[in-house]
Amino acid sequence: MLFSKLVEKLKQGQSGLIDYKIISDSFILAASSIDKATQNEISFLDKNSPLNIKNLIKSTKASVLLLPSNENSILEITKRLNCDWAILKDPKIAFAETLELLYPSEIEKEGIHESAVLGKDVKIKSGVSIGANVYIGDNTEIGDKTVIHAGVVIYKNVQIGKQTIIHANSVIHSGSKLGDKCVINANAVVGGEGFGFVPTPTGWKKMPQVGIVILKNKVELGSGSTIDRPAVGETIIGEDTKIDNLVQIGHGVTTGKGCAMAAQVGIAGGANIGDSVILAGQVGVSNKVNIGNGVIASSKSGITSNVEAGKVVSGFPAIPNKLWLRCSANFKKLPDIAKAIRELERKETR
Amino acid sequence: MLFSKLVEKLKQGQSGLIDYKIISDSFILAASSIDKATQNEISFLDKNSPLNIKNLIKSTKASVLLLPSNENSILEITKRLNCDWAILKDPKIAFAETLELLYPSEIEKEGIHESAVLGKDVKIKSGVSIGANVYIGDNTEIGDKTVIHAGVVIYKNVQIGKQTIIHANSVIHSGSKLGDKCVINANAVVGGEGFGFVPTPTGWKKMPQVGIVILKNKVELGSGSTIDRPAVGETIIGEDTKIDNLVQIGHGVTTGKGCAMAAQVGIAGGANIGDSVILAGQVGVSNKVNIGNGVIASSKSGITSNVEAGKVVSGFPAIPNKLWLRCSANFKKLPDIAKAIRELERKETR
Amino acid sequence: MLFSKLVEKLKQGQSGLIDYKIISDSFILAASSIDKATQNEISFLDKNSPLNIKNLIKSTKASVLLLPSNENSILEITKRLNCDWAILKDPKIAFAETLELLYPSEIEKEGIHESAVLGKDVKIKSGVSIGANVYIGDNTEIGDKTVIHAGVVIYKNVQIGKQTIIHANSVIHSGSKLGDKCVINANAVVGGEGFGFVPTPTGWKKMPQVGIVILKNKVELGSGSTIDRPAVGETIIGEDTKIDNLVQIGHGVTTGKGCAMAAQVGIAGGANIGDSVILAGQVGVSNKVNIGNGVIASSKSGITSNVEAGKVVSGFPAIPNKLWLRCSANFKKLPDIAKAIRELERKETR
Repeated sequence: MLFSKLVEKLKQGQSGLIDYKIISDSFILAASSIDKATQNEISFLDKNSPLNIKNLIKSTKASVLLLPSNENSILEITKRLNCDWAILKDPKIAFAETLELLYPSEIEKEGIHESAVLGKDVKIKSGVSIGANVYIGDNTEIGDKTVIHAGVVIYKNVQIGKQTIIHANSVIHSGSKLGDKCVINANAVVGGEGFGFVPTPTGWKKMPQVGIVILKNKVELGSGSTIDRPAVGETIIGEDTKIDNLVQIGHGVTTGKGCAMAAQVGIAGGANIGDSVILAGQVGVSNKVNIGNGVIASSKSGITSNVEAGKVVSGFPAIPNKLWLRCSANFKKLPDIAKAIRELERKETR
Repeated sequence: MLFSKLVEKLKQGQSGLIDYKIISDSFILAASSIDKATQNEISFLDKNSPLNIKNLIKSTKASVLLLPSNENSILEITKRLNCDWAILKDPKIAFAETLELLYPSEIEKEGIHESAVLGKDVKIKSGVSIGANVYIGDNTEIGDKTVIHAGVVIYKNVQIGKQTIIHANSVIHSGSKLGDKCVINANAVVGGEGFGFVPTPTGWKKMPQVGIVILKNKVELGSGSTIDRPAVGETIIGEDTKIDNLVQIGHGVTTGKGCAMAAQVGIAGGANIGDSVILAGQVGVSNKVNIGNGVIASSKSGITSNVEAGKVVSGFPAIPNKLWLRCSANFKKLPDIAKAIRELERKETR
Repeated sequence: MLFSKLVEKLKQGQSGLIDYKIISDSFILAASSIDKATQNEISFLDKNSPLNIKNLIKSTKASVLLLPSNENSILEITKRLNCDWAILKDPKIAFAETLELLYPSEIEKEGIHESAVLGKDVKIKSGVSIGANVYIGDNTEIGDKTVIHAGVVIYKNVQIGKQTIIHANSVIHSGSKLGDKCVINANAVVGGEGFGFVPTPTGWKKMPQVGIVILKNKVELGSGSTIDRPAVGETIIGEDTKIDNLVQIGHGVTTGKGCAMAAQVGIAGGANIGDSVILAGQVGVSNKVNIGNGVIASSKSGITSNVEAGKVVSGFPAIPNKLWLRCSANFKKLPDIAKAIRELERKETR
């Protein structure tokens, strides 16, 4: 793709093209990171990159650069660059749009592979692709253009929307409802039974888990992640919420729209997560906790009580991020603190 | 089901029916949580619920309520309720029994799906259900009424007891022994090779893992969880021990009876866990550690040394829970503590 | 196998045979741990075992013992032992070699199971074993003597080397390159799409993940572990790096040779791990962090910034291990520290 053609496309996109210069109108063959790019490759510099990365725009061998508009020092360097470049409000979005153009996602072949096994009254809409060795239970519905990769098992009475992609060997349990444009990555499990056992004198009594899991439109679930169904009612993942790999969502959890949960996050049963909440890697949320809209929890934090909207929290038990940073800095000084006290006590008793 | 009929059933159950009142003998169509229940639905209030939940019994639209006997304030309100109610020693158990009655678990069709592949000398007892695309290796035995869902892979020489359920795409490795009434949830792995590598000057030397995994009766294993086999001997999960999703049990671990391990717990090789141990979410246990009967570890704790029976531990490294609570409270004050010391030192040197 | 024959084999191995005594030239039927061994069984004592384990060599019923050379007390006891024994520089390696001899790993039957589904232009080299219900996409290549167990799904354009083993229900995504002698355990996922979403006013914009995952020779990946592919470029796992169960490796991570990562480790996108790095269980590594050669991180640590080669770190945020040990010891004393300060302040104001 010629750089000039890309520029026309970016003008129609979401990245906010501000300026550009066509020096040699490079033919873009591939995309690469700024440190590894070579001729005929396009790369980008993210907003607020660290200095060692920023400096790479002087030495990169990329033929085309997508650059941020928010730093004067970059704008200065850009004017002297000898490659094709574009300045954008959000170069990362521009790079995403470029990747879409350079590497269009493959359209899976419509049809049901002959090795797939379908139960009774399965409803398959048009344009659906069902891979090898897939199993689909009775009364399940698959929406238009949805792609189900090899080895997926879908139990009975499941509803799946349009243009959803389910990767290999994932499992969708009975009663689950998946929206449109969802992505379920490989080996994920949706709708497994919640972990509910009541102690009795003769051992654990199992609480039947007769609820369901609902994934709204554009939910994405990472490889190996698990979302449990509750005893009664629903576990609900809100629209456009993105979940990374090996994340556990307990029974009866509700999340709002547009959340992002990084790998190995665990959310215990009944927790209530607002809109646009961001949980970093290995965060834990205790059961029945309420987390307000826009909360951010940094990695490894453990949220054991309600968090108000807009707060940034860290640590375990989670406290305000700024406080935690100061506490952590002092944690490292604990041996000195203990020594100072001994010293003061010694002087005191003199 | 009529409430009057449910009452008769509860009398025969484990929940300890103390009192009840049939006001309209509601026909129960469904079960729901107390905040979401509507007409013809049954709900329950757990013992020691927080006040905001307890207050819901005045406003719930549920037609039937199962209520706890241990709080006078609830007993007072109950007498004035206009719906059918029962007072029980353990309303949660009553609710579990109610769910069993309202939503009887489906009996899977006996038989071996034509797409399943069985090795040589596989022994299948009566009433067994084997789903689509299942693979079972040579010499494996499947007990009466056991259900194996689609896509499960069972290697050779495995023994599986009666009335065990193995969900879709789980994997059971060679030599594993599963008891009766076990549940293996989707994408779990039983008997994978333990992580054993010995450093040598030329790289890692693999320790062959020729042991096996034994799951006693009524063990339940969550979706995506993994239990490794050891170099020699056995990894043993005791009877009635319940394991949540994405839990890792290392090679050579032994657990007692009736334990519960919440999601994302990790137990390193050779650890020895007693009876009735409860590990909350994301707990880690170091290798070869001994944990006594009845120990409780709160979420995210890391147990690095032996814990005596009956202790409640928290934090990392784990310490007694009560001490940890006080330490955590003081952790938040570390900046103030540091400041106070500087102040004292300043005064001292005056 | 006779002990005398084993001795001949050990002489050719890597364990450094120093001395041995054939008392009855036992016929070794099985291997066992030193506390459980019985007649005709072989066991070993690791270097630097704790005293309670060391003492077992006086009481064990094992017929053959492999013992370490680095402790005089053991050498003393050994001379008086009534069983066959060998003294070695590394008895653990000797035990691994013994297990290989006693329990030779089964050779899987060459051939493609009739239920396996292969795409177009799949290249299968000689001696390959492909299990039941496997799916392999177009243009994928499988090297000599590689074993692919039942239910595995391999997408298109994958390259797999020689003598690699892929266990049941694992998934290998398009473009992945696996070396020789790798082991992918059950339900692992190689090459799933990286977690890349850019915030926009209308929701998350997905960053296409068009890179690939490369596993060099002798990489081993645990059950349920996941390795993501990046937006551009490669995620690379270095030769002889061993990864335990339920580990998450983010997009664009690079690891060196000979690393070991215990269960439930999570490495965020773009992190750079040197050679021979050891990460204990549940460790987290933040994105783009550089970790030098030979670094060791103890369990549950969270590495949020670069770590120089050779360092041992602990805690979250990770700090030098020795400092962390002292800080943790003082953490337990925080209530006393706070009390001491109050006392000093009280005296001060008198």
